Amino acid sequence: MTDKTYSRIHISRAGSVTRVTIDNPPVNLLDVALMVEIRHYLLSVRDDPTIRVIVFQSADPEFFIAHVDMTLIDEPQAFDEVARDAPEGLNPFQAFGELLREQPQVTIIKLAGFARGGGAEFVAAADMAFAAEGRAGLAQCEALMGITPGGGATQYLSSRMTRGRALEVILGADLVDAATAERYGWINRALPAAELDDFVDRLANNIAALPEGVIAAAKKALPAEDLQEGFRREHDAWAGLFERPAAASLIRGGLKIGAQTKDGERKLEDLLRGLEI
Amino acid sequence: MTDKTYSRIHISRAGSVTRVTIDNPPVNLLDVALMVEIRHYLLSVRDDPTIRVIVFQSADPEFFIAHVDMTLIDEPQAFDEVARDAPEGLNPFQAFGELLREQPQVTIIKLAGFARGGGAEFVAAADMAFAAEGRAGLAQCEALMGITPGGGATQYLSSRMTRGRALEVILGADLVDAATAERYGWINRALPAAELDDFVDRLANNIAALPEGVIAAAKKALPAEDLQEGFRREHDAWAGLFERPAAASLIRGGLKIGAQTKDGERKLEDLLRGLEI
Amino acid sequence: MTDKTYSRIHISRAGSVTRVTIDNPPVNLLDVALMVEIRHYLLSVRDDPTIRVIVFQSADPEFFIAHVDMTLIDEPQAFDEVARDAPEGLNPFQAFGELLREQPQVTIIKLAGFARGGGAEFVAAADMAFAAEGRAGLAQCEALMGITPGGGATQYLSSRMTRGRALEVILGADLVDAATAERYGWINRALPAAELDDFVDRLANNIAALPEGVIAAAKKALPAEDLQEGFRREHDAWAGLFERPAAASLIRGGLKIGAQTKDGERKLEDLLRGLEI
Repeated sequence: MTDKTYSRIHISRAGSVTRVTIDNPPVNLLDVALMVEIRHYLLSVRDDPTIRVIVFQSADPEFFIAHVDMTLIDEPQAFDEVARDAPEGLNPFQAFGELLREQPQVTIIKLAGFARGGGAEFVAAADMAFAAEGRAGLAQCEALMGITPGGGATQYLSSRMTRGRALEVILGADLVDAATAERYGWINRALPAAELDDFVDRLANNIAALPEGVIAAAKKALPAEDLQEGFRREHDAWAGLFERPAAASLIRGGLKIGAQTKDGERKLEDLLRGLEI
Repeated sequence: MTDKTYSRIHISRAGSVTRVTIDNPPVNLLDVALMVEIRHYLLSVRDDPTIRVIVFQSADPEFFIAHVDMTLIDEPQAFDEVARDAPEGLNPFQAFGELLREQPQVTIIKLAGFARGGGAEFVAAADMAFAAEGRAGLAQCEALMGITPGGGATQYLSSRMTRGRALEVILGADLVDAATAERYGWINRALPAAELDDFVDRLANNIAALPEGVIAAAKKALPAEDLQEGFRREHDAWAGLFERPAAASLIRGGLKIGAQTKDGERKLEDLLRGLEI
Repeated sequence: MTDKTYSRIHISRAGSVTRVTIDNPPVNLLDVALMVEIRHYLLSVRDDPTIRVIVFQSADPEFFIAHVDMTLIDEPQAFDEVARDAPEGLNPFQAFGELLREQPQVTIIKLAGFARGGGAEFVAAADMAFAAEGRAGLAQCEALMGITPGGGATQYLSSRMTRGRALEVILGADLVDAATAERYGWINRALPAAELDDFVDRLANNIAALPEGVIAAAKKALPAEDLQEGFRREHDAWAGLFERPAAASLIRGGLKIGAQTKDGERKLEDLLRGLEI
């Protein structure tokens, strides 16, 4: 496997740590191609015991993963390739998060910029996440598109924070800064932006240096929670809204006025709130 | 329904947001009349899709809801009207909280002053709560009256914070300030007092402006936890103590030295701790 | 029972509060003798209704409980006495924590110094813990010895913090300061070091002064979570690693270069990370 396998992510390896740098301009949209590449990479190293830690970071200091490609609304068949491999009982977006959540390696998110929607779900599906104060932002902004999160967020948030905070995140639909995300338990820690790289590097290297078997034993003692029943509820809630005209209208409307461009994504919530339903 | 239906609460509506202002001088005691009015209001709007968000606030800047009327100790029959409608397996106070917790609208507490006992349970039963730094206070002070919380607090706290913190709140029985309540997960956030109104207004309006169906879908994906078994344990623990002479003696003693007056309620914990058992 | 019953702990009693001062120089190692004495004390007061609160503190301002005696690796039979009384389904270290967790009195940790490994598990098994900012430290550093925690930490941490934070604590294996431990929910609160004694004294006295039956009722309403299944997973994960040569090599190596001495314990993580596997 060489870097040439991938065009939207770059893989660099040092010892037992690999870094996956997401580089899908202009805003690191979670489009089909990016999902396919990340999925391929995770599967390709799944049984490789020489890789112990996977750090996800972004080539773009402003955007980690913007969110799922909103043009999906007009090209649902584009996700067929992703959907084909989803396990029974999971929709393709839930399956994508679960693939990450079940990765045997330790997965760490280095969050220097924004992650919304499916991007925030990717952050929450990883084992750990560290975010830059004053720069990072997390949002489940689906409500502004007339839907609820459908790729795991309702359950990932529920296992991390009180129901009241999860409802605030999902229905308030604001961009949450790193300090608040830490207080809510959404991420492990908020760190001064200048310290983020060193902190994550040191942690990743320390974990990678542990004796053989320790990572697997820790994950055995602390298994990922079984969220199947919640995923079904989440999917039903999401699908019921996604079929309504409001969702299509808001998503197409958002695209027309700047969503998925760098400028539009800097103030995506304001932009979407300005649309007429 | 006009304001004249109610004498202890005022209802004001703007768009799909209603504000319920509790106004039951001198300290917003949760007496039978206030419970009946709040219950009546919640039931009356339960099936009204034009109301999406209900904000609870207080006419008294110092007291949100003081606590359940302590004179109950000598007039248990006064609560018969409330008790009559309690679902099987819930005592009247638990049933009151559960009515709020199951409200289809989004319920938000704006906490500028103190809420103790049943008042704190009301706060915890709502979907979200925001509190003023330096002014708001929450307490489960029942232990100082010789009892444990009997209206849901033991279970609401358990689902929000670690057992150690819930035990500290219940057995330490101190007034907890907004910042600590936020750190413990008891409320969503502590905010500078001057920002509380604007923050809650904006959040309420933003949620009310979401497309139809989004609130219901979010509540479907994040259902209120089933706490029946815990409520039974809570009621048994509470009832066993309530029948003891110490409870009656402390509650009557507290009333004699200033509980349920503005002055007494400002330092209720000190006042109750001064009583001989 | 007099102080002479014990040589590694000192018992002092004032009213219904007892203070257990751990004094096992040089670093308050959790050796067989200390485990036996603490166990004996807990059992001896278990049915004593005149004792309501037990505060654990250390005679050494730097170390609360260093960790389990690492020489166990070469004297496993030393723990036979402790193991003999462990309930079915629990290893001796889990049984020790569970004994504390099931104590009918309210148990409070006053943490002025470091507690690692089995010492940190002891802290987490108590009902409440308060720690001195700038001085206290908690660590599950077992990973640096080639093992995962085997005395309850994986489950105690899981019930207190998000899985991501528990994995960070266990695999990152760093000393966690009081402020971070509070944010993660590991302890109740971090307090200024100068206020720790007064805070804990006041809380212990207030709880001890509650009317009869209130403590028992609170513990009935908030029972300790059943962690049996998790303990089995934890033990299996731990035991699988403990049998490997890396664990023995790291533990013996650590002992050779200063573990279990005051100097070595001040920087135990650095010391262990310097060992070749």
